[in-house]
This record gives sequence, C-alpha cells and structure tokens, in this order.
Amino acid sequence: MKEVSIVALPGDGIGPEVTDVALQVLDTVCEQHDIKLNVTKRPFGGTCYDEFGEPVTDEILETCKEHKVVLLGAVGGPKWDDLSANLRPEAALLKLRKELGVYANLRPIFVHSALSGSSTLKEEVIEGTDILIVRELTGGVYFGKPRFSAEEDGDPFSVDTMKYSRSEVQRVARIAFETAKLRGKRVCSVDKMNVLESSRLWRKSVLEVAEEYPDVELSHMLVDNAAMQLIRNPKQFDVIVTGNLFGDILSDEASMLTGSIGMLPSASLGGENGLYEPVHGSAPDIAGQGIANPLAAVASAALLCRHSLKLESAAKRIEAAILKLLDDGYRPADLYNDEPGTTLANTEEISNRLI
Amino acid sequence: MKEVSIVALPGDGIGPEVTDVALQVLDTVCEQHDIKLNVTKRPFGGTCYDEFGEPVTDEILETCKEHKVVLLGAVGGPKWDDLSANLRPEAALLKLRKELGVYANLRPIFVHSALSGSSTLKEEVIEGTDILIVRELTGGVYFGKPRFSAEEDGDPFSVDTMKYSRSEVQRVARIAFETAKLRGKRVCSVDKMNVLESSRLWRKSVLEVAEEYPDVELSHMLVDNAAMQLIRNPKQFDVIVTGNLFGDILSDEASMLTGSIGMLPSASLGGENGLYEPVHGSAPDIAGQGIANPLAAVASAALLCRHSLKLESAAKRIEAAILKLLDDGYRPADLYNDEPGTTLANTEEISNRLI
Ligand SMILES: CC(C)[C@H](C(=O)O)[C@@H](O)C(=O)O
Ligand SMILES: CC(C)[C@H](C(=O)O)[C@@H](O)C(=O)O
Repeated sequence: MKEVSIVALPGDGIGPEVTDVALQVLDTVCEQHDIKLNVTKRPFGGTCYDEFGEPVTDEILETCKEHKVVLLGAVGGPKWDDLSANLRPEAALLKLRKELGVYANLRPIFVHSALSGSSTLKEEVIEGTDILIVRELTGGVYFGKPRFSAEEDGDPFSVDTMKYSRSEVQRVARIAFETAKLRGKRVCSVDKMNVLESSRLWRKSVLEVAEEYPDVELSHMLVDNAAMQLIRNPKQFDVIVTGNLFGDILSDEASMLTGSIGMLPSASLGGENGLYEPVHGSAPDIAGQGIANPLAAVASAALLCRHSLKLESAAKRIEAAILKLLDDGYRPADLYNDEPGTTLANTEEISNRLI
Repeated sequence: MKEVSIVALPGDGIGPEVTDVALQVLDTVCEQHDIKLNVTKRPFGGTCYDEFGEPVTDEILETCKEHKVVLLGAVGGPKWDDLSANLRPEAALLKLRKELGVYANLRPIFVHSALSGSSTLKEEVIEGTDILIVRELTGGVYFGKPRFSAEEDGDPFSVDTMKYSRSEVQRVARIAFETAKLRGKRVCSVDKMNVLESSRLWRKSVLEVAEEYPDVELSHMLVDNAAMQLIRNPKQFDVIVTGNLFGDILSDEASMLTGSIGMLPSASLGGENGLYEPVHGSAPDIAGQGIANPLAAVASAALLCRHSLKLESAAKRIEAAILKLLDDGYRPADLYNDEPGTTLANTEEISNRLI
C-alpha cells in the first residue's frame, strides 16, 4: 500500500470544521485508491498565536516544507484584529506562501448550474462561466522591499514597493499557458501597463513566454477594464493571469459570479509544493455551530489530489460528489434560499452524503 | 453680465463629439443664468501628439492652470498605443491631474430607474443604488518615486513605489466626509491594511479626520472584500473613499452597476481647480459616426456647474434634462436594446432634445 503524508492547518473560526470534512473525504478517496493517508495537524494563525505567541512557528513552517503538501482551513478573526501587522493571522499566511514558494495561485471560478440562480448577476450572464484565475502569489507589492514608514517635514508617510522580475512573471505565466492548453486555450493577462513600470515588464515577459505556446491565444487587458469585463461578460474569459494585488481583487470579485464564495477552492503551486485552501474566510460568527459550508474545503482537497497526488480520478470523484449533492437539492446554509426542491443541510449531513 | 472662462480639451476619438454637446448645453444654462461662457479649446492626448509631438504641451498645461476649470472629452486610441509610455495620451492625463493638483476624483455611481434593467446585475440588487466614489488622484503608486527598471543577475526587474503621506490622505478624506455630510452621512474607507504599510497609514489618517466629523459614520473595508461587496450588495454604500489604484479598479467595476459606463461623469477637484471628464474612453471604433453617447460628458458639465461655477441650480437643470430624456424613452446606441417604449437617438438628436 502506497502512503502519502500531508500537513493539515485547520486554522481559525470555521477552519477546523471544514478541514475536518475535507480530510474525511480525502481519506475515503485515498482508501479507494489503495493509498494510506497520513495527516500531521498543526495550529496556524490565531489559534497558533494563542498557543505560541506568534501566528506561525519555525517548526510549523519546517513541517510544511518537509511534507510539501498542505491543506489549510481559514485564518483570522476579530480576536486577533488588534495585533500588530507581523503578529496577525494573515502574516502567517503570507509567510507560509513565501516559504513554500507557491508562486502560482489557481482559483477556478466555476458556476454550478444548480446554483446559477444564487448570484446577484443575471442567470443568462453567468450561466456556463468557467474561468481559471492564476494569481502570482509570492511577489509584487505584497513582498517588495523597501517597505517602511517615515516622516518628511512633519508629515508621516509610508511606502510599499511593487516589484516584479522577468523570471517571477514568466514562471507563473508558464503555469497559466500550461493549464490553458488543457482547457479553452486562451490566456488573458491583466496588468496596468499604461501607468506602471512593473506592468510594462509584466506584459513584455508574458509576451515572451507566449512564443513557446503558439497554440494558446494570448490577450491583454488593463486591470480596471478587467474589473468591468468580469461583470459585463464573464463568459469571454478562459484563463486569467495577473499579479498578486490585482489577482487578490479580481478573484474576490469573480467569486461573486458564482453566488457563493463558500463554493470556491484554491491551489497554490510552486515546484513540488502545494498549498490548498478554500477562498472563503474564517467566518467567526458561525464557527462551532455545525452549519459551515465545507464544500470549498472539500473542493480544495480535490485540487490536492489533482495537483500534488497526481490522482486525477480521485479529484474527479470528489468533484462529482459535490455536483451530485447540489443536483440532489442539498444546500448548506449560505446557499439555502427556500427554493422548491432544495433541502437545508448542516456540515455533518453534507459530510455524510459526500462520503 | 458675469463672465466665466473655461478650457475645453476635446481630445481623441469620440471626445470632440461629446464635448461639443456638453459645451452647447453648458452655454445654454449659462445664458439662462445671465452668464457669458468663454471657452478656450486646446488639443490634448493623441491629437496633441499628432500636432506637437507630445501628448500635452507646457502652453496647454499653463492655459489649464490659469483658467482653473477644464472640461475634458476622452483620450487615447490604437493609433498611439505603440508610443513609449511618456508620449502616450494617458501620460498627458496623469500630468494634467498632477499639475492641476486635483487630488480628489469624484465618481457618482447612480442607477437611473429608467435604465435599471440594462445592467448585468439583477434589477432588485441595483435599484436605488447611489454611491459616490472619492478616489485619491495625485498620489499612490501612480506617482510614487522611485520608479525604474534594472537588472539583477541577468534577470530584468521593474519597480513602482506605492507611497502615501498623512496629509495626502487627509485632504481627500476631508472631501469624502464633507460630501457625505450632504448625502447619506456614511463613509466607507477602502484599503489593504492587512498587507500594505501605506494602507495602514491610510486607515490611521482617515480615522484622525473622522474625529472632526462626529455626525458621519465611518467604516473600513479591505479592497478585495469591497470588490465583492459592490456586486453582492451595492446599496450598502454611500460614500467610498480610497487610494488612486484601488479607486481606478473599484470605480470601473462599480460603473457596471449602472449598465452603461456611457452615463458616468467625473469631477476631479483640488483647491480652486476642477477637471471634469466622462468616465468612458475615446471609443475610436465609433468616432465620427455621430452615434456617440454624450450623456456622461453632459453630466460632467453639470458637475462643473456645481463644483467650479457654484451654480447648483444650473447643475440640477442639466441633470433633470438628462433624466427627462431617458424617461421619455430616448436612448443613445450604447443603451438601446429594443425595449418597448424606447427610441434610438443619435448624438445630434440627444443634443437638440437636451437643449
Ligand atoms: C488574508 C490576505 C492576506 C489574503 C491576501 O490578500 O492574499 C487573502 O485576501 C487572500 O486572497 O488569500
Ligand atoms: C487612462 C488611465 C491612465 C486612467 C487611470 O488609470 O487613472 C483611467 O483609467 C481613469 O480611470 O481615468
């Protein structure tokens, strides 16, 4: 029997509840594939701060790097909001991404036909939307140096640095082109090249990579226009590749197309490492009530099977189970709206049905 | 008879057509208010580059600064897309904003009830939406220094600097609070303080200004969440204040709520200076055909009356004329969709009806 070892970082709020379901599902499909799944659990974010005085420890980072594959729940909550920047749960997330070197964040935006009524956008606009956002995750203004605060003539000011190098752009662009090859064969690169120097480098670097992929069609869009086009006509997009900050904004915006951010998984890849997490937050207001929607965490586990375990059939199995659950009319609280033919289901029921 | 003097920069593409209508409307209301309107016209953007080899000249900038009030059409087009960054039409726009010191860009996002069906969002979601976005316009990563390209170990890289000072934040925050006082008395400040140093300064500086406005309610939102909330529930917002880059993205996104960017005006203010321009671009594909929608330019002229000429009644008159035109069923090409009771109208017909 083959063994695989992963790290689980359930994190804060509803993180533990949804991670739990995802792990059970993962365990089930692994068993079906004759694989023994070993899970090493560690605290992360606020819960880690409570235990160790920092949102992530060196030991935890080392454990993640050793195992290469990490399933994360969610981090953050009002309890830790007043901590200084470097102690906040988000700081742990940024550190983990950087240490794992997971430079490509994949966020599929897929509108399930069973849910196409739950968006605030008109059904005919979003029906059939299937976008993959590839966000650069370890560079840009998130990590650029210098970053400091100072004072000039009595006026305090603060500085962040938006920096991209050609190699940083090209490795994430390659991921975008490679995945586009397996999908609609179109990549739209989003930048702000009419204003930013780093965006001009971005565009030039993407254009160079594009030459290696003559079968993939490349287009460019300015970020302000992209923010518009995602709402005006989302179906025009196949794969979108963009920088860290623009990707943060656009992928959250795009998540609204699906009607529920509670459905969206993400995979962050770099070399042999993979970090998998739902797009939604820790939802501290509903934590511990057993009503959290675990589907994004479960879908993240599917991505883990696909990208880290190379078990495409297991990934497909999990995704089919989610689809079936929705088609059968079961809805977690955040998706339930009393529609005829649908049934409200809590976290445990969903878990049982999936398995 | 009082006289007022303004500069008109019709610009490129449909710019001249729509500016023409706006100037006629402006002339009409000024006459009604016993004011003589003097208009100095200058080329700007691509048309200026064609004439003078640069997208704006010192003489033009000086003329604008002298007159303090500028009505702009639109700039840009494929013809000038391959020019180097500092020769492109957009460079002229950034220079003009900076030279005029118009640090506060006001973009009202108002859903006309006659048009609430033309958005891709569901009617019940956007009906009654009335947001004012106040975007900082002369700072942030648009203007931060250093900005350069270099090479490190054979790997080219580029850098932009996102910088804000307390005074820059506070003067635009004051505009947001002042305008909120005249509206719904709520300000939502948007930043990315969980990642950016400049956003932490932004938030702190806004909080200080808020103390001067105890009757205005202040909230804070992260930019990724704001991109989501604008689609999820736009009616929750009254005034949004944010930095240059975030404002660029969010205001274009928000423009989609209205169903047509062809409707949206903007005012950029700083001291005694005012720059007024439609939010839409130069639409080179339809330029010269007489079918451009001039309503955003006309609405910008209304803002010019309100903020620079202090002629609130003239502003209201213009806005009422636009409303009446729409209520009467007239639609410019970009808004026309064959709906019963509506009539397609070209630029000239719209102009005549308004006047
Ligand atoms: C929590 C925050 C630091 C993070 C980010 O901005 O990357 C989050 O918004 C995300 O998109 O994963
Ligand atoms: C043309 C461009 C430089 C400009 C900007 O980014 O400010 C435009 O998008 C706008 O919003 O007025």
